[in-house]
Amino acid sequence: MASRKASTQDDLRRHNRARLLRRLHESGAATRSELVAFTGLNRSTVGVLVSELAETGLVSEVPGSAGQVGRPSLVVQPTPQSAVVIAFDVRVDRTVVALVGIGGEELWRREQEHDRATFTPQWAVHDMIGLMREALSHAPSHAAWVGVGVAVPGIVEHVDSVVRLAPNLGWRDVPLGQLVRDAILDEFGFCPPGHIGNDADLGALSEHVRGVGTHHRNLVFLSGEVGIGGGVIIDGRALLGAGGYGGEVGHMVVNPAGKLCRCGAHGCWETEIGRDAIVVAAGLSPEDHDVSDVVNAAAHGDVTAAEAIHQAGEWLGIGIANLVNILNPEVIVLGGHLRLLLPMVGGTVHRRLEYAMTAPRDQVRVEVPALGGDSSLLGAAEAAFEGLLEDPITVLENSVHAAAS
Amino acid sequence: MASRKASTQDDLRRHNRARLLRRLHESGAATRSELVAFTGLNRSTVGVLVSELAETGLVSEVPGSAGQVGRPSLVVQPTPQSAVVIAFDVRVDRTVVALVGIGGEELWRREQEHDRATFTPQWAVHDMIGLMREALSHAPSHAAWVGVGVAVPGIVEHVDSVVRLAPNLGWRDVPLGQLVRDAILDEFGFCPPGHIGNDADLGALSEHVRGVGTHHRNLVFLSGEVGIGGGVIIDGRALLGAGGYGGEVGHMVVNPAGKLCRCGAHGCWETEIGRDAIVVAAGLSPEDHDVSDVVNAAAHGDVTAAEAIHQAGEWLGIGIANLVNILNPEVIVLGGHLRLLLPMVGGTVHRRLEYAMTAPRDQVRVEVPALGGDSSLLGAAEAAFEGLLEDPITVLENSVHAAAS
Repeated sequence: MASRKASTQDDLRRHNRARLLRRLHESGAATRSELVAFTGLNRSTVGVLVSELAETGLVSEVPGSAGQVGRPSLVVQPTPQSAVVIAFDVRVDRTVVALVGIGGEELWRREQEHDRATFTPQWAVHDMIGLMREALSHAPSHAAWVGVGVAVPGIVEHVDSVVRLAPNLGWRDVPLGQLVRDAILDEFGFCPPGHIGNDADLGALSEHVRGVGTHHRNLVFLSGEVGIGGGVIIDGRALLGAGGYGGEVGHMVVNPAGKLCRCGAHGCWETEIGRDAIVVAAGLSPEDHDVSDVVNAAAHGDVTAAEAIHQAGEWLGIGIANLVNILNPEVIVLGGHLRLLLPMVGGTVHRRLEYAMTAPRDQVRVEVPALGGDSSLLGAAEAAFEGLLEDPITVLENSVHAAAS
Repeated sequence: MASRKASTQDDLRRHNRARLLRRLHESGAATRSELVAFTGLNRSTVGVLVSELAETGLVSEVPGSAGQVGRPSLVVQPTPQSAVVIAFDVRVDRTVVALVGIGGEELWRREQEHDRATFTPQWAVHDMIGLMREALSHAPSHAAWVGVGVAVPGIVEHVDSVVRLAPNLGWRDVPLGQLVRDAILDEFGFCPPGHIGNDADLGALSEHVRGVGTHHRNLVFLSGEVGIGGGVIIDGRALLGAGGYGGEVGHMVVNPAGKLCRCGAHGCWETEIGRDAIVVAAGLSPEDHDVSDVVNAAAHGDVTAAEAIHQAGEWLGIGIANLVNILNPEVIVLGGHLRLLLPMVGGTVHRRLEYAMTAPRDQVRVEVPALGGDSSLLGAAEAAFEGLLEDPITVLENSVHAAAS
C-alpha cells in the first residue's frame, strides 16, 4: 500500500501541475490568488507548483499592472519563447504553416501554394519537412520543440492517424501520421508528440479553446471548402465516435431530389452549399472562381450571384436546423467560405432555424470564427501542445531545442 | 492538509465502493478475483469493500457453480430483494410501470391504458401515484425504495426535469419532475432520488447498459412511435447538448419537397417514417390502425402496404446514413415500430447505407433492441438506480422500506 499511496501522490502532483499549465496556456496570465481559486488547492501547494513550472522556463512571474494602491501583485504567465510547436493547415491549394509558442502566440507563419494535381502524400510530407526547417530557423534560441500538428481536409482515424479519405486531395488510406513521423526522425533525429486531425475537428477545438466557444461546452464548427466538413464538441470533448469520424456533416442528405454528389448519393449538404455548387449557381467557372467572387458579384448587383447566395442560405439554414435538433449546441461556427456568406444570408438562416425545435433553438447562436481563417491551423497547434499540457516535465525532458534541430 | 488527505481517502473509498456496486448491478455476479481484476485494487481492499456492501444487504456472497475440481469459489452478486426502483414508461395510449430490483431484475409490472385526449400532466401524476402504491405493495418485505424513473415521449430539460414539449401528449413546459416529487412526498412522506427523461434517451441507456450496445461506446437508439425520437450515447456518455435536448432526430429534414410536419417544416424524418405516415401510405386510418397492421397486411400480400413499408425503408436508410456520417456510432438500435419494420426493409436500409462515408459505415450495425419493447422502461429503471449507484450508503440510509410506504 505504501508505494501505491506514493504513486497516487505523485500522480496528483503531476495532474495538478498539468492543470495549472493548461490554465495558463489557454486563458493567459493569472495571479497566484486566481490560480488558488481556479485549482481549489491551497496557496502553498500552488506556490510549489508555480515554482516547479517556472524552473522549467515554461512560465514566469512578472509584476502585473499596478491598478490598485500598493505594489502590483505578481502574475504568472506562459513564456512563448520557452516551448514551441509547428502547426500545419494542409489545404487543397496550399499549405499554411505556423510556429506557435506556449500560450498560443503565433511567432512566425508562411503559406506555400501547391498544385492539387501533383500533391501526393509524399509530396506533402516533403513540403512539410522543408517548411519545418524554415519554421525551426525562426524559433527563439532556447525554445524546446514540443509538438507537431497537422490539419487535413479529410477523415482521419483517430488512433492510427491514417487519413482514410481526403476526397479533394485524392488521398485514400494514407498513413500520414507514420509518414510524417518517419520523415521527421529521418531529418531531425528526433520527433516530438504529433497529431494529425480533420481540419473541421481542429477548427472546433481552437474555437472552443480560444475563439467564439470559449464559454460554451457544446459547439459545432463547419468548414466550407470544396466540401463541407464538420467538427463537434459535446460537453467540452470532441465528438469522435467509434473511429474518430464523427461530424462528417457534408454528406448529410438534405435534398434527395437534388444533385448527384461525388459520394454517389443525391442532395448531400455539400452539393448545395459546397464551394463549387455556389460558384456554378452564380454562373461562374469553379476552375477560376471561388465564393468570394460570387459575394463580390452579388455586392455589385449581379442578380444570378445574389440568387445563388440566397439559395445557399436556404440550404445552410435547413442543415443547421438539423444539427441544432440532433446536437443541441450553444454555438455553430461557420468557417471557410460559409464565413463570407453569413453576413448576406443571416436572415435566411435564422428564418429556417425557426423550424428547429424551440427548446434547442433558443440556446444556439450562429457565429463566424473568432480566429478568422486560422481556426484549423490554430487547432492543429492546440492539438500539438496536448502532449506537453498532459505531462510538461516528461515532454520537456525528452524534447530538443528547436533552433538546434 | 491532514483533513484534506482524510477526505480524499474517504472519497476514494466511497468511489471504489460505488464502482464495485455498479459493476455487480450492470454485469451481474462476479468472484472476488474478477472484482480485483476489474477494479485494479488489491485483494484485501476488495474484501473490505465487498464486506461493507454485504452488510448493507445490497450484495451477498454465495457459492458459485462447481465447474472445476475442488470447492466452488464464492461469487458476489446483487440481491434484487434488497433495493428496488419504480420505473414508468409513459406512452401516448398507456403507462407501463415496473418494479425493478438491483441487478436489473424485473419483479413486477403492469400496463394501464389511458385516453390521450384527457391525459393531462395532473392526470398522469395521479395515475403514477396509484401505480406506485400498487408497485410498492408487491415489493419484497425488506426492500429499500431507492429511486423513481419516468420515460416520457418528449424533450426534457436535463437539470430541471421540465418537459419542454411532448407533442403527442399535447404537453408543453410541464415541470413534471416537481409535480411527481411533490405528489410522492404528499402521498408517501418521502421521495427517493428521481429522474425524468426522454423515452429514446432512456432506451439508449438501457440498450447500452444491458442490451445490444453492451460492448460499444457509441450508440444511437431510435424510437418509432407517432413521432421519431432519438437517444445518443457517445464515448459511453449520453449526448445531452446544452439543455439535454440532443438526439431529436425526428425533425431532421430529409425531404424538403415532402409533407408538412406539425413542427412547420416540410419533410422531417418523422413525416416519412412516423407511425401515421406509414399507416396512411398503406391506405389505413391512423385512428384505428398501427404499424403492426401494415406489416400484417403486407405479409398477407397487400401491395399498397408493402409499398408503404418499402418507402419507409428508403427514408429510414437515408436518415440512418446521415446519423452514421454525423455520429459514427457502432450500433443503431431501432425501437418502437421501427423494430417491426427492420426484418422487411433490412436490405433497403443497407443499400441506402452504402451512401454513407465508407469509414464510419464499416463500423456500424443496425439492430433491433435486445430488450424488445421495454428499452425505455428499463432505461427509466437504470436512471432511477443512478443515485444509489453513485453513493450507495447515503441513499440507503435515507431510504424507506418499500413495503412500508
